[in-house]
Amino acid sequence: MADKIKKRSVKSGLPPGTLVHIGTKMVAKSRIHILDYDEQGVREKRNAPVGECLPFRDTESITWIDIEGLQDTGLLEHLGNSYGLHPLILEDILNTDQRPKLDDMESYLYVVLKMLDYDEPGLGIVSEQVSIVLGKNFVISLQEGREGDLLEPLRERIRSGKGRIRKMGSDYLAYSILDSIIDRYFLILEKLGEKIEVLEEDLVSDPRPETLRQIHQLKREMISLRKSVWPLREVIYGLEKSESGLIQQSTRIFLRDVYDHTIQIIDSIETFRDMISGMLDIYLSSVSNRMNQVMKVLTIIATIFMPLTFLAGVYGMNFKYMPEIGWRWGYPLVLLIMIGVAVTMLKYFRKKKWF
Amino acid sequence: MADKIKKRSVKSGLPPGTLVHIGTKMVAKSRIHILDYDEQGVREKRNAPVGECLPFRDTESITWIDIEGLQDTGLLEHLGNSYGLHPLILEDILNTDQRPKLDDMESYLYVVLKMLDYDEPGLGIVSEQVSIVLGKNFVISLQEGREGDLLEPLRERIRSGKGRIRKMGSDYLAYSILDSIIDRYFLILEKLGEKIEVLEEDLVSDPRPETLRQIHQLKREMISLRKSVWPLREVIYGLEKSESGLIQQSTRIFLRDVYDHTIQIIDSIETFRDMISGMLDIYLSSVSNRMNQVMKVLTIIATIFMPLTFLAGVYGMNFKYMPEIGWRWGYPLVLLIMIGVAVTMLKYFRKKKWF
Amino acid sequence: MADKIKKRSVKSGLPPGTLVHIGTKMVAKSRIHILDYDEQGVREKRNAPVGECLPFRDTESITWIDIEGLQDTGLLEHLGNSYGLHPLILEDILNTDQRPKLDDMESYLYVVLKMLDYDEPGLGIVSEQVSIVLGKNFVISLQEGREGDLLEPLRERIRSGKGRIRKMGSDYLAYSILDSIIDRYFLILEKLGEKIEVLEEDLVSDPRPETLRQIHQLKREMISLRKSVWPLREVIYGLEKSESGLIQQSTRIFLRDVYDHTIQIIDSIETFRDMISGMLDIYLSSVSNRMNQVMKVLTIIATIFMPLTFLAGVYGMNFKYMPEIGWRWGYPLVLLIMIGVAVTMLKYFRKKKWF
Amino acid sequence: MADKIKKRSVKSGLPPGTLVHIGTKMVAKSRIHILDYDEQGVREKRNAPVGECLPFRDTESITWIDIEGLQDTGLLEHLGNSYGLHPLILEDILNTDQRPKLDDMESYLYVVLKMLDYDEPGLGIVSEQVSIVLGKNFVISLQEGREGDLLEPLRERIRSGKGRIRKMGSDYLAYSILDSIIDRYFLILEKLGEKIEVLEEDLVSDPRPETLRQIHQLKREMISLRKSVWPLREVIYGLEKSESGLIQQSTRIFLRDVYDHTIQIIDSIETFRDMISGMLDIYLSSVSNRMNQVMKVLTIIATIFMPLTFLAGVYGMNFKYMPEIGWRWGYPLVLLIMIGVAVTMLKYFRKKKWF
Amino acid sequence: MADKIKKRSVKSGLPPGTLVHIGTKMVAKSRIHILDYDEQGVREKRNAPVGECLPFRDTESITWIDIEGLQDTGLLEHLGNSYGLHPLILEDILNTDQRPKLDDMESYLYVVLKMLDYDEPGLGIVSEQVSIVLGKNFVISLQEGREGDLLEPLRERIRSGKGRIRKMGSDYLAYSILDSIIDRYFLILEKLGEKIEVLEEDLVSDPRPETLRQIHQLKREMISLRKSVWPLREVIYGLEKSESGLIQQSTRIFLRDVYDHTIQIIDSIETFRDMISGMLDIYLSSVSNRMNQVMKVLTIIATIFMPLTFLAGVYGMNFKYMPEIGWRWGYPLVLLIMIGVAVTMLKYFRKKKWF
Repeated sequence: MADKIKKRSVKSGLPPGTLVHIGTKMVAKSRIHILDYDEQGVREKRNAPVGECLPFRDTESITWIDIEGLQDTGLLEHLGNSYGLHPLILEDILNTDQRPKLDDMESYLYVVLKMLDYDEPGLGIVSEQVSIVLGKNFVISLQEGREGDLLEPLRERIRSGKGRIRKMGSDYLAYSILDSIIDRYFLILEKLGEKIEVLEEDLVSDPRPETLRQIHQLKREMISLRKSVWPLREVIYGLEKSESGLIQQSTRIFLRDVYDHTIQIIDSIETFRDMISGMLDIYLSSVSNRMNQVMKVLTIIATIFMPLTFLAGVYGMNFKYMPEIGWRWGYPLVLLIMIGVAVTMLKYFRKKKWF
Repeated sequence: MADKIKKRSVKSGLPPGTLVHIGTKMVAKSRIHILDYDEQGVREKRNAPVGECLPFRDTESITWIDIEGLQDTGLLEHLGNSYGLHPLILEDILNTDQRPKLDDMESYLYVVLKMLDYDEPGLGIVSEQVSIVLGKNFVISLQEGREGDLLEPLRERIRSGKGRIRKMGSDYLAYSILDSIIDRYFLILEKLGEKIEVLEEDLVSDPRPETLRQIHQLKREMISLRKSVWPLREVIYGLEKSESGLIQQSTRIFLRDVYDHTIQIIDSIETFRDMISGMLDIYLSSVSNRMNQVMKVLTIIATIFMPLTFLAGVYGMNFKYMPEIGWRWGYPLVLLIMIGVAVTMLKYFRKKKWF
Repeated sequence: MADKIKKRSVKSGLPPGTLVHIGTKMVAKSRIHILDYDEQGVREKRNAPVGECLPFRDTESITWIDIEGLQDTGLLEHLGNSYGLHPLILEDILNTDQRPKLDDMESYLYVVLKMLDYDEPGLGIVSEQVSIVLGKNFVISLQEGREGDLLEPLRERIRSGKGRIRKMGSDYLAYSILDSIIDRYFLILEKLGEKIEVLEEDLVSDPRPETLRQIHQLKREMISLRKSVWPLREVIYGLEKSESGLIQQSTRIFLRDVYDHTIQIIDSIETFRDMISGMLDIYLSSVSNRMNQVMKVLTIIATIFMPLTFLAGVYGMNFKYMPEIGWRWGYPLVLLIMIGVAVTMLKYFRKKKWF
Repeated sequence: MADKIKKRSVKSGLPPGTLVHIGTKMVAKSRIHILDYDEQGVREKRNAPVGECLPFRDTESITWIDIEGLQDTGLLEHLGNSYGLHPLILEDILNTDQRPKLDDMESYLYVVLKMLDYDEPGLGIVSEQVSIVLGKNFVISLQEGREGDLLEPLRERIRSGKGRIRKMGSDYLAYSILDSIIDRYFLILEKLGEKIEVLEEDLVSDPRPETLRQIHQLKREMISLRKSVWPLREVIYGLEKSESGLIQQSTRIFLRDVYDHTIQIIDSIETFRDMISGMLDIYLSSVSNRMNQVMKVLTIIATIFMPLTFLAGVYGMNFKYMPEIGWRWGYPLVLLIMIGVAVTMLKYFRKKKWF
Repeated sequence: MADKIKKRSVKSGLPPGTLVHIGTKMVAKSRIHILDYDEQGVREKRNAPVGECLPFRDTESITWIDIEGLQDTGLLEHLGNSYGLHPLILEDILNTDQRPKLDDMESYLYVVLKMLDYDEPGLGIVSEQVSIVLGKNFVISLQEGREGDLLEPLRERIRSGKGRIRKMGSDYLAYSILDSIIDRYFLILEKLGEKIEVLEEDLVSDPRPETLRQIHQLKREMISLRKSVWPLREVIYGLEKSESGLIQQSTRIFLRDVYDHTIQIIDSIETFRDMISGMLDIYLSSVSNRMNQVMKVLTIIATIFMPLTFLAGVYGMNFKYMPEIGWRWGYPLVLLIMIGVAVTMLKYFRKKKWF
């Protein structure tokens, strides 16, 4: 994240609406993927040049323009002009550290949210910004272009014509994209849940500083996840309750369903947070418990051997007149006294339940 | 819970409205139990085939269709078609990690909540999802089908015809089901209260790491209980204040009563939470107090015997010219000095209230 | 409290409106005390049978029916029928673990709250549930019946006819009862304030685990007090702003006054909470400070005597060829070196401000 | 504060509206100070008898009646009757542990707030209750009567006729009194800010338990300050937005200004709170850091001298057949070994960065 | 900040509207910079005398009067009279410890906010108050006058006539100033992000008390930043939703964009806060972990050498009758026993995973 903020400050002083791509370049070249459909059929163009987007603008059929890779600002400017997008919207699309939000621009709705994934080992949660522009008969989705296309199953559903998607409008398409992205969040939760379980076992069996570091790592991932999901709730709520004519009544119930999912995800995150903070408590108290154990061992050893060593020291003194030194049974007697002292001490510690 | 989330991610990519049972299969076969009644009489069918549900749909009498076991998606689809349930509602019924919620579908209300129990030893709180569909003359309740039927006393009340239930509408039946479920929560609170009392006594008499683990276990159960109850409050409130014509005025006061119970349960949970966090404080400070005791024992022993051992060491040196060595009363004198040092130290520690 | 929850679960499964007394039986027999008054005069009946309540129902004068002891469910049922109380209200009256609340039943208002006292030594805060039913010309108050009647001064004021009470309606009577009960809360706060002061002095002079236990005891009393007062705020606010015709305009300003008292009590509770949590901080840091002192004593002793004992040990070795042994001034020299080491160590510790 | 609560409970059981002065008697006798002015001139009466207040009631000019000392309940009752004040308002004036509040009594507004000062050394924040009654052409202010009159500069401004005050109504006068009182809060903040700075330096240079005690003292002053300021915010907001005809439009902007000051004071208090809690953290960690230092010194000394003392002990044994004893270079060799052990240990600790 | 509060209390007792500059004098002399423009051209005056501001008041072109340095209260009074500014607004301009706020004065809007910078090494965040007065055809901006003009790029844009600024009204100019200032906040966040990263590495590699001090320093900077940004959110929201005719519809979308930036900044601050509090946890637990290590070293050394030293002490006793002393293999046997004890101890510690 710090990485993106750094780039963000580059724009300081530039006039509003200046198109600068803020974020990491993920694919070599921006790709346009057009999918135009109605109840009768589907027309599809992969890697289409930007000029081919325009003819679809005014058709009755639903057009889905999916763009992967945001570095080609010229392409975006062209598309923006064709579809009448406001310069500030284009700026938001390019600025990939956006907070999820919904902008109602009257002739179209603009939604930006995070697409999360977890597949790359060691990296943890991978986040990619997705912008969705919902117009009368079209949906434009813009992704940063990470590997592994989450939206392919949706495209397949459109191609096959199964379910209700081909019969519904562009709002249902936008809903379907949102639904695909948010469904993926459950996978992230599942992975985090697994991590928590593993860490909990580690905590019980062998708490190490490394464990603490991992708990904090997990906590940070949770904060980052939370940052993506909390504003999403408002976004979906805004869509459902939107007064825009672009959202039909029949789609609202589906948006309500996505809203419920979002609430459910937030609930799980809050539960995980509680669990993690409980783990921190357990870690700290198990560390202090171990310290206690160490101190007890030290104290037992010291309290047994210090008096004994003192006794031995007394009879190691070189005074000329020490009657005990000459006694026949002096040595065994002292040994007996020593054993007596040690046993007394051990009994005392056992009574105190120190071992 | 992690278990259910895991299964939840299976649905990722499937079109909305796909019926997949998410959760554990609790009974071998879905069972349908039909109870149809009016002021005059009661008609009852146990283990009825799904086709028998349909004729009851349009009667004037109140029909309660209770289904145990959710794995038979075909049965649900059939029932959904007969009673005009929306595919998303059917999906919610099958998805057993729902958060309690209320959906007003105009021709019917859909309520989902958790039925809690505590009877299985060692397992703690056992949670089962219950869906209630309230229509004009019918109520459909859907349980996962755990052992021990909480709703049997309610059925008995209908059969006997005592009280007002046979004179009231389907909304009163739905209320009665909710009331039966929520009344059970008080039992859970009672069990948790007992657990807290036992743990508090343990804390005072013998605080061990095991005690800490149990406190955290309890805390987690509290979190899980809270997660079930908090949203329930909104659900009941929504029912009471609902503008749906399905809820009659005379039933609202009963819903208000259930609402008060929910608030009372939440209050108790919050009190328990405060008590548990107080217990954590006491545990930690009693551990650090014990450490203090250990340190004091060590310090007392060390500060008494170190100077004495040193003294003995001095007169154990082999210098040729050590006048004290040859003194007649050297040895007793040194012993007296040693006793003096020890007594002084002990007095100092007593003054410092170390023992 | 746990005690009452336990009994609460007894009702699980019973139909709503079943009258079962939940709570402890405090007086041997329910007592009815009728006080009927108008501007002209007062009629009073102590220990009246329940049948005598009825004639007062429709008079123009104000009737105050005070009932002590809730175990006689028959009496309550009779009274409920006479005054048209809803079965759920009767159930709430009997259920003595209610949260303070206000129910507007149109023809009457129902208020339930906690009457607190502190007089029994060792018991701390003693809580008793009071229900108040405010009708057109009557007020019914129902107490659990603990010793010591808080409402007697109010009765005396009615009998004497001083002040405005005999000129006002039943709403002013209900207000006066509430005011009497809430005024008592200030006494509780005063007692808790004294306890806090005593504990703070203990903390400074001699912090012991017992002190910690008492702080937690105090904290728990605060939680319990808070639980009684917080919802009361809403209740009084609801009464003041109530649209019910039962509350006259002239009484509202008095309710506003009680509301201000409630806010003031809440404020004091929050201040006490802050003070108590500050006391926990001080306790913990004074414990860790003591540990520090202990450790310093140990370290000073050990670092002084360990090198000295080592030196003594060196000259206690039995090597044949040790030139120092034979020196004339060897022994005094070694003693001087020992004193030098000890003094150096002490100076180091003083520089470090260890003592 | 506890002192006032104690007295508060004296009123328990008395009828509402009974006038009892709750608080400390600060001046020997209640003093009335009348200031009557309009654009033309000023009439002033010091130590006026209460009867002289009445004639000013119905004049067109603005009358400011300032009363110092609240113990003369008869005076207050007389004034209350003259100006038509509600008995409950008189009760609130006398009850000096009020929370800041605003009561709109239609014909007049009643404001109560705290006047704070800091001038008495050792006492810290000194709080005095001020009541302000704003009527059509008059303002009555009632102070407890601490030394040092904060309102004298305001009186001087009225007498001199500079500024707009003589041209404005009674609402502007009430605003001016509020403004004078709240401006004083900034002085308190300044003093607290200085205290915090001094304590922070102490924390770095020499953290002692005394420092902790002072931090908690400061924290408590902050809580007390907060208690005075937080409700004030609502009071001023209520005045500004009041629908009462007593507040003219032109005065509202000035009230808005006072409101901004209140917000600013709250902001500073919250910042101070954050700083103080940060100081507690630093204190605790610096204490634990010191403990760490102590432990390290102990461990270094012990780990160096224990092995050496053991070695010396070995060659202090009296076995007849110990070849090393007779060696010519035995003693120097052992000394060399000892130095080697010590150096190795020191290197180990330096590597571990223990010193 | 304490510095400004100190000066703030100087005003205590002065009548409202008295112009006193509160804050540090940053430039030698107040400078006026006038920029007057419309679509056709730009007129610019640097270091203009205050009298030259007036003629621009009633022109159709947009006038931007930028003032650096606030100590010249006469200049401000003159300007205030010319442009009809309320005395309280002038007072707010001079009082440089204002909280960001928006005042709608009908004929003009007044916005005050903080301009932040980070360029001075060692000083951290540098804050300067900026006031913006937005009228029909003019904008007056007032800065304290720190070095380095953030608004120069904006002026350059006006001069060059690029972009839409010359075509828009005074509201767009005010927006542009706000945008320039808030864009700078991202730089501050970036710098703080870098500091956090450096500190996190320090925490892992070498946690020292100095690190803790720096974490708290950072935390304090975060609090200060937060204090500037939180109220800003309301200010921008208020502007966007303002019913004032001074804000045109076309500008609102730009204000919405700034609002989004503010939310994003708040989000980052909250994330940083979470990270910093996590760092405190890690610091504390790593300190306690180190203590644990130290204790283990001490305990291992003590438990190995204490028994050995005791053994050596036993055979250093001078009893006449000690059979072992005379044995041929006594000495080697004792050495063997000693090695055995040491090895056993080491094995025990390894089993306990102490090293």
